[in-house]
Amino acid sequence: MTGEPVLFSRLVEACDQDWRAYTRHQFVLALALGDLPEACFRRYLVQDYLFLLHFARAWGLAIYKSDHLDEMRRAQRLVSATLDVEIGLHIDYCRGWGLSEAAMAAEPEAPQTIAYTRFVLDRGLAGDRLDLETALAPCIIGYAVIAAERMGAPATQVVGNRYREWLGMYAGSEYQDLAREATAALDEQFRRRGGEGRFLSLAATFATAARLEANFWQMGLDAVS
Amino acid sequence: MTGEPVLFSRLVEACDQDWRAYTRHQFVLALALGDLPEACFRRYLVQDYLFLLHFARAWGLAIYKSDHLDEMRRAQRLVSATLDVEIGLHIDYCRGWGLSEAAMAAEPEAPQTIAYTRFVLDRGLAGDRLDLETALAPCIIGYAVIAAERMGAPATQVVGNRYREWLGMYAGSEYQDLAREATAALDEQFRRRGGEGRFLSLAATFATAARLEANFWQMGLDAVS
Amino acid sequence: MTGEPVLFSRLVEACDQDWRAYTRHQFVLALALGDLPEACFRRYLVQDYLFLLHFARAWGLAIYKSDHLDEMRRAQRLVSATLDVEIGLHIDYCRGWGLSEAAMAAEPEAPQTIAYTRFVLDRGLAGDRLDLETALAPCIIGYAVIAAERMGAPATQVVGNRYREWLGMYAGSEYQDLAREATAALDEQFRRRGGEGRFLSLAATFATAARLEANFWQMGLDAVS
Amino acid sequence: MTGEPVLFSRLVEACDQDWRAYTRHQFVLALALGDLPEACFRRYLVQDYLFLLHFARAWGLAIYKSDHLDEMRRAQRLVSATLDVEIGLHIDYCRGWGLSEAAMAAEPEAPQTIAYTRFVLDRGLAGDRLDLETALAPCIIGYAVIAAERMGAPATQVVGNRYREWLGMYAGSEYQDLAREATAALDEQFRRRGGEGRFLSLAATFATAARLEANFWQMGLDAVS
Repeated sequence: MTGEPVLFSRLVEACDQDWRAYTRHQFVLALALGDLPEACFRRYLVQDYLFLLHFARAWGLAIYKSDHLDEMRRAQRLVSATLDVEIGLHIDYCRGWGLSEAAMAAEPEAPQTIAYTRFVLDRGLAGDRLDLETALAPCIIGYAVIAAERMGAPATQVVGNRYREWLGMYAGSEYQDLAREATAALDEQFRRRGGEGRFLSLAATFATAARLEANFWQMGLDAVS
Repeated sequence: MTGEPVLFSRLVEACDQDWRAYTRHQFVLALALGDLPEACFRRYLVQDYLFLLHFARAWGLAIYKSDHLDEMRRAQRLVSATLDVEIGLHIDYCRGWGLSEAAMAAEPEAPQTIAYTRFVLDRGLAGDRLDLETALAPCIIGYAVIAAERMGAPATQVVGNRYREWLGMYAGSEYQDLAREATAALDEQFRRRGGEGRFLSLAATFATAARLEANFWQMGLDAVS
Repeated sequence: MTGEPVLFSRLVEACDQDWRAYTRHQFVLALALGDLPEACFRRYLVQDYLFLLHFARAWGLAIYKSDHLDEMRRAQRLVSATLDVEIGLHIDYCRGWGLSEAAMAAEPEAPQTIAYTRFVLDRGLAGDRLDLETALAPCIIGYAVIAAERMGAPATQVVGNRYREWLGMYAGSEYQDLAREATAALDEQFRRRGGEGRFLSLAATFATAARLEANFWQMGLDAVS
Repeated sequence: MTGEPVLFSRLVEACDQDWRAYTRHQFVLALALGDLPEACFRRYLVQDYLFLLHFARAWGLAIYKSDHLDEMRRAQRLVSATLDVEIGLHIDYCRGWGLSEAAMAAEPEAPQTIAYTRFVLDRGLAGDRLDLETALAPCIIGYAVIAAERMGAPATQVVGNRYREWLGMYAGSEYQDLAREATAALDEQFRRRGGEGRFLSLAATFATAARLEANFWQMGLDAVS
């Protein structure tokens, strides 16, 4: 690392307000304080389960869109992380919140879930793999940023917070490493497939994705409105 | 026509409630009565402009997904109807409502616009052309149904209704013919690429698309909430 | 199994001549007799390595095109079988034939390799997952048929045949099971997404794929022409 | 134009030998001399008809892959040029060579036709629109280069050459303008979506496409081998 701003940082800077609206959304702040209504969290959990299925599809698409074996293998690891690990953990975790897999699978996808997941897939198919990973970045890297920020915020309640496990998972070193790898992959692809000419278009993709992620939190909050 | 239920009718029947929620949405009823707030209609017009761009992309995709020359030409006619006719008419019509093309193009896509358009494109890419046209049917054929129903409803105000032109366009014979052609194309494709085994999956696609269209009306209404 | 003809058998029957031209190609017959020139086999091995990369891409695409979790997991297993097992075995096996991975990766793809792999991917993107798996069937299932037929043919030389390991791998129970699973998947998808109306189009896809596979053998033979 | 090398020229330079093998292929030289066997030309004409169908699909895909209205309209014009003009002219021209449309449509696609067309479509789907147009460039722009070069070559027989009309069509100002527009579009997209980092990958795509085009001429020649 040379100290130069990496692509991810530039993308965040270019949509400063959307990024704050997403990463410091009321849903997240309330979760860190421990006073998010449980109905909001449950709604989020159910839709996040449905989200993961399309997240796995996006990484399957990335396998198809790979130029060489290493790229394929990284996408394959993310498919596997999603289908073999995350979905299982998510199902276990949700069971603790009284949500069975069958119940979650039977739930209709919320428009907010459809909006973000299909936006990602369309960017991935209309554009190339850099467009795809840029659209995914607010999710993969954003969750690591959010959890780290919340864990570092003085107001955050760790003791006695029923959402602590959620924060711990994304603030933990395993997930933070995954996010760092995704950040490095963006830079590698920007060097190999990008160039300054693409920045504006990538920034627009990233900003829309951040906006749709904020919208996803809002869907959780709206469960009690 | 043999009197047998066509695919479109079966799809409507299979999602009766979603279909009513879409075709008799408060937005539509208020529009027919002439008392829809103008701010709602303007919001709808702007997002409908952005919608049309993706609608043209969907028919471009249908050209790619064609099996033979006739299929290609039908999709090409719809690209052309969208890019050469509809967008122009829409721009002219919107100018009458004080909306310039530049202003509409500068507006961010609403999540509701993203949700429906990208859902359609994803169904089209993940599935085949029948999946694509089924996801488009609530839009193309649905607008013809809605306008015809409203024109036939005793409560509808035709005289002095500022939305009359909109109703007239979709209730008019040109648009009704286009919808009939789309209905016939669904049947043709169901015979050639379908079979009963696909019905459940097509019905799920259609129902979700209807739900996302209702959500699109709601976005209009929410302009004044 | 009910004794009814399965989709795979019907597809084979519908392109009888193309199927024989592929499965009993001179390359295969000579390989079973042990008198295929080594230069032909080496050319085949190199191109088969390049083929496998696109084969993995095809199953990545199948993950994207999945309708539910089980479908995703089957596609994921095939990505994994290709990237984690087959490519490794292939590289080891090729090393025994004096071919290093670097040398194979540096070789340009033959037009015959491009023709079959990109035909498969295009069918997969233009059509749905059943179209994709139908285009792959002459490869996945076909290799199992070819190896089993050759192992059962009186003329085949097993002892002292330098290609024996190749035959053994595809005639072995592990690969035969994989082919049976692929056969069953075709039937399951034909029930769920198919119907008689699709048969002609699927048969055309299958026939072209078989023709392109025969062309791939021919490329091997042409190494000494 | 600033005198700087444009992308197209750089792509040609980067695959000098493949480019010569394509643009000065024996098929082309013999055609310009007027002594290409008619059977070769007829085989080429039939496969070129089948090629055009996929060429139209590629531009349909480009509509889908467009980022804004101008891009969509350019792709739409090329769909229209293909489906409304070129295919018609081709059919008329072929009739003069004793080939009916029905006969051409009934002919199986040659592996060489499949290889180039599906390679283009796969690059277009795996990559972005710049990848797609780069894969198409040896066709669109290459034909203009070939015809202009042949028309300027002293050995070329114009008088009494039965292939003169073919040469004249691609050397004519209308087609040369279309090729210039495609050249400019490559530059525009390279500025907006490219950057030096992409050059190697684009050059590889272009070289493979040129190789597959040479292979397509060879298919014509092989009609009499």
